[in-house]
Amino acid sequence: MKFEVTILGSSSATPIFNRNPTAQVLNINEKLYLVDCAEGTQQQMLRFDVKASRIDYIFISHLHGDHYLGLVGLLSSMHLNGRKKALKIFCPPPLKEIIDLQLKYSETTLNYPVEFVFTDAATKGVILENQDIFVETIPLDHRIPCTGFLFRQKKRLKKLIKERVEELQIPIPYYAALKKGNDYQSPDGTVYQNNTLTMEPPEPKSYAYISDTLYSDKYLAYITPVTMLYHEATFLNDMLDRANQTHHTTALQAGEAAIKVKAEKLIIGHFSARYKTLNELLEEAQSVFPNTELAVEGKTFVISE
Amino acid sequence: MKFEVTILGSSSATPIFNRNPTAQVLNINEKLYLVDCAEGTQQQMLRFDVKASRIDYIFISHLHGDHYLGLVGLLSSMHLNGRKKALKIFCPPPLKEIIDLQLKYSETTLNYPVEFVFTDAATKGVILENQDIFVETIPLDHRIPCTGFLFRQKKRLKKLIKERVEELQIPIPYYAALKKGNDYQSPDGTVYQNNTLTMEPPEPKSYAYISDTLYSDKYLAYITPVTMLYHEATFLNDMLDRANQTHHTTALQAGEAAIKVKAEKLIIGHFSARYKTLNELLEEAQSVFPNTELAVEGKTFVISE
Repeated sequence: MKFEVTILGSSSATPIFNRNPTAQVLNINEKLYLVDCAEGTQQQMLRFDVKASRIDYIFISHLHGDHYLGLVGLLSSMHLNGRKKALKIFCPPPLKEIIDLQLKYSETTLNYPVEFVFTDAATKGVILENQDIFVETIPLDHRIPCTGFLFRQKKRLKKLIKERVEELQIPIPYYAALKKGNDYQSPDGTVYQNNTLTMEPPEPKSYAYISDTLYSDKYLAYITPVTMLYHEATFLNDMLDRANQTHHTTALQAGEAAIKVKAEKLIIGHFSARYKTLNELLEEAQSVFPNTELAVEGKTFVISE
Repeated sequence: MKFEVTILGSSSATPIFNRNPTAQVLNINEKLYLVDCAEGTQQQMLRFDVKASRIDYIFISHLHGDHYLGLVGLLSSMHLNGRKKALKIFCPPPLKEIIDLQLKYSETTLNYPVEFVFTDAATKGVILENQDIFVETIPLDHRIPCTGFLFRQKKRLKKLIKERVEELQIPIPYYAALKKGNDYQSPDGTVYQNNTLTMEPPEPKSYAYISDTLYSDKYLAYITPVTMLYHEATFLNDMLDRANQTHHTTALQAGEAAIKVKAEKLIIGHFSARYKTLNELLEEAQSVFPNTELAVEGKTFVISE
């Protein structure tokens, strides 16, 4: 099952020419999940051929502009482009008020339904479950209420060992039960253990999106273990005081976080505009966690094939 | 006195890859006046080296997203970049409510003063006068309250004919009176007519910004005559019905408008995303008004040297 993330924006609030503020899009089994939606996200989607019509879910971590100011424009464009199917937005409660006010004064009534699911920045909890995944909110510690999001694949069914199943001439109606783990009793009364007829499915993979936060063990505990960790790394560690003061983290801390949560891979992003080039941030994170990559606009990272 | 406009965005609401929604910036005597501020305007300013710190005035024509959704981000960035000097925003009244709500939930108190001057879409009137210009609102006919803006240079002082003034040994303290048009009486009682001592200043130039509107003679009368006309041209004239229905204009109508207002030059913009290339729009406007150019991102048009 496809499970990958494409970076649409990698910068923090102050604008910088060659980077966009935060947004990324997950493709999970050919459904698109937009995570944060800074100003310019629509243009980035056009640039990287991400179809807005394929987005069913939008997640907004918090109400600093560099994480949501592109949302009203995107909703309007979906309307102008004739969208009819429902959209679910997971966000802090005031975002509905902000959107409603802007639609009111532009005298726009969206011609598709929007369902809001309000996040609570104080509690960890499942906010979405569908056939492919669970999504949980992760309470973070920022200057205003802020949540990360943990995307976890559902455990899939076991796979039949085809030759064995055919050899025993097990009737097709039994297959579903076998995939769920049941044993098989043949007409002559012989019992075949499930593990002789099936293979375990691949372990579910997971992706944690840790947007703006002060470093703490608390949120790391919530996401351990995780396959791929996206973690903000606004500053280099020589600016740790500034990071603490603004409730952000450093590239070094992001690397340490990746170790603690037993991640296979770390993506760092949300870079301060003071860094014209990003090598130092990458090297600092890699000094503690070698399998680190930079969030770069347009780049896709595969969490599971 | 420098008087020029740089295009930052030329498209209408539906996004298109290679164009940005509407924004432009006037440089009048080295002061910057931002006119509309669609999503992505900040990035466009970085791209074309327009310094946000030099903007003292922002004008918003109406509250459709493709004309103002970049404003809150721009205000936040000015704040983050340490702006202290005051900013004046001329806009429909609800925009203050929208901005205040977004700043409230991001817990941001701007560290510079913002003065709002509310436009009234029903009346023509001067909303700004400073040493260089007058700015007037132009009532337009769109689906929601909408104003255009007319920028008119002030009439400058007369220029002294230096050789003549020196020949007559006119004392310097008299110069200011001569520039204003007074005659000069020499100590021997001879009166010298002002027009023998000074030259007329150049005629004041003007720029009209006609954003979204149904075509009508009414707003054209308000801006006649004008040096340079920016006029929306959302559609080709074969879509006149659609233009009328959505309260927009066609490239042909923009050309006709330029004739009526006795413009020297016409700039057309606000192109629908349906037009991947713009030649047809340009040719249609030029068929009635040859001195037409396309609003193209990054292009600067000189209204007066």
